[in-house]
Amino acid sequence: MTTTVSLLAAASALPGPAVDNAALGRRLGMDALWEQWVEAFIGTRTRHLAVDLDSGEIRHTLLELAHQAGGRALAAAGVPADEVDLVVLGTATPDRLMPATVNLVADRLGIDGVPSYQLQSGCSGAVQALTVAHGLLLSGGLRTALVLGGDVVARFYDLSADLRKLPPAELVNYVLFGDGVGAAVLRVGEVPGAAALRTVFTRLVGLGRAPGATLEWFGPVDRDSDRPAATEDYKAIEQHVPVLTEEVVAELLERLHWAADEVDYVLPPQLSGRMTRLIVDRLKLPRAAEVSCVADTGNNGNGIVFLQLERALARLRRGDRALGVSIESSKWIKSGFALEGL
Amino acid sequence: MTTTVSLLAAASALPGPAVDNAALGRRLGMDALWEQWVEAFIGTRTRHLAVDLDSGEIRHTLLELAHQAGGRALAAAGVPADEVDLVVLGTATPDRLMPATVNLVADRLGIDGVPSYQLQSGCSGAVQALTVAHGLLLSGGLRTALVLGGDVVARFYDLSADLRKLPPAELVNYVLFGDGVGAAVLRVGEVPGAAALRTVFTRLVGLGRAPGATLEWFGPVDRDSDRPAATEDYKAIEQHVPVLTEEVVAELLERLHWAADEVDYVLPPQLSGRMTRLIVDRLKLPRAAEVSCVADTGNNGNGIVFLQLERALARLRRGDRALGVSIESSKWIKSGFALEGL
Repeated sequence: MTTTVSLLAAASALPGPAVDNAALGRRLGMDALWEQWVEAFIGTRTRHLAVDLDSGEIRHTLLELAHQAGGRALAAAGVPADEVDLVVLGTATPDRLMPATVNLVADRLGIDGVPSYQLQSGCSGAVQALTVAHGLLLSGGLRTALVLGGDVVARFYDLSADLRKLPPAELVNYVLFGDGVGAAVLRVGEVPGAAALRTVFTRLVGLGRAPGATLEWFGPVDRDSDRPAATEDYKAIEQHVPVLTEEVVAELLERLHWAADEVDYVLPPQLSGRMTRLIVDRLKLPRAAEVSCVADTGNNGNGIVFLQLERALARLRRGDRALGVSIESSKWIKSGFALEGL
Repeated sequence: MTTTVSLLAAASALPGPAVDNAALGRRLGMDALWEQWVEAFIGTRTRHLAVDLDSGEIRHTLLELAHQAGGRALAAAGVPADEVDLVVLGTATPDRLMPATVNLVADRLGIDGVPSYQLQSGCSGAVQALTVAHGLLLSGGLRTALVLGGDVVARFYDLSADLRKLPPAELVNYVLFGDGVGAAVLRVGEVPGAAALRTVFTRLVGLGRAPGATLEWFGPVDRDSDRPAATEDYKAIEQHVPVLTEEVVAELLERLHWAADEVDYVLPPQLSGRMTRLIVDRLKLPRAAEVSCVADTGNNGNGIVFLQLERALARLRRGDRALGVSIESSKWIKSGFALEGL
């Protein structure tokens, strides 16, 4: 029985130009002091948005971005559409409830006759999608998987509201998040020049814990509901995410019998430039170079792990080892994976 | 390597009392002739609804029903929560975008520390959930899975509208669908007295085909959008579903080297009492008894395959063989499974 799955390539698609804090501040009616505050305490410099800040027009859908990212990943892997045996997409923000966006992405890429799954997930969704694809590839019969993850939160950006009146806990969402989709191609077996996905897991650890983040949808009947569309408990997130990250790193090392000083790269959770900094500083991985992008892309939800993978694959040499961690605060999921250059 | 997964038990949860066509007709402002028309041409007699028809109040959530169904399935299987290694839920109508409902269901059932996945899916979602769980169980390391599927469409039942003015293509949705959740417990290995899940698959077959059904969600920004919340192309559904069902049956028989006259039970797609009748009449399974419930429960979306499984398991004896088929019209997915009594 084959027990290795290789990561052939990863790619991404980000909407529009990078929006910096100055441009965001202008649109939100904030001053230069606010901009300095964001730089210092959030540490996210730019993000890409599916919504045009000036007109409020939503210019990109999850489908379009996933189509782009998926096409790029397949091209980078040299895999034609008819070699794809499985498609898995993770997202918190599908374009519709039905059809699942994954099926429309497959259609645009010319993929047909294969299983297609869409995971409804928060920040751990990329690793959920990788875990499901990895497991299904190992269970037999399938050889190649296209795995995608991403989010478009434009339908939550109410630019018609007076944003200066928002409490900081809501306003900060405009700073932290960005839209984007990433994709990766997995293939059964050890493929020279690729990276072996040595292990990957996700684990719900939410028993009895209140959700750290919520995101609502509205139907025809409850459109007028005044329940908040999105909530975040940043105190809980700051408290739990660094601890859970350390637990995941320890578990990955133990599973693989790797020593901490054998890790060459670490792909940490991407909450914000500053939070990621604090998390990495606590990790005892003395030789590991950090692979992060949140300061430039914002937190892309289900997408960002693929953006990190794209960057990590460009650097990983034969024998190099990398650990990745993603933590979902919505109902508390810890997840991680390990790569080794082939 | 173990290659068998057993289905230990299945259970369901349906909201409130059965609503018959007379009661539905009264609420929709329809006369006795309409009721006769529904009996004759739809063939669905009753359904269960999460919304109270008189007050419009939504009385049940997906979480509550999934908690009930999951608890019943675990009890019927004699499996305590701490033996569950994996939870998978399929739904088109999650309570929220985040957290995924599956994680809150796990929390209520006392399940923690295990992978949990929620598939965004239409009518094939139950089989998608079974396929993912089956594959992950076979990929190693996990022994027992709780698999759930269901839908609550109450947020699409606009009872404040004048329903007599709806075109038949919209009004028929009130007749066809019902709310409900089902669950099943899977365990690696051949468990005496249970049913072996001999094969299970889902396959996207939507390339170039227009979606046969759509369901929208609305965000804070597009609440006022007048795009239709739900559409169905019943012509396409009537045309394609019987053909796709025959294809799935043929593929299942071929995979398992079973002859058509060796099939004891068939679990056909549950579109409506009448459509299911037409589908079964075309199938050339001379000895197979039909296991259906749509005429009493309505089409429960992601739930109904579990309701059929609950009924089938009560009848399946050692050596009995059963085939199940589910077809998703949203972007056209065919799916099927085969059981054998142990």
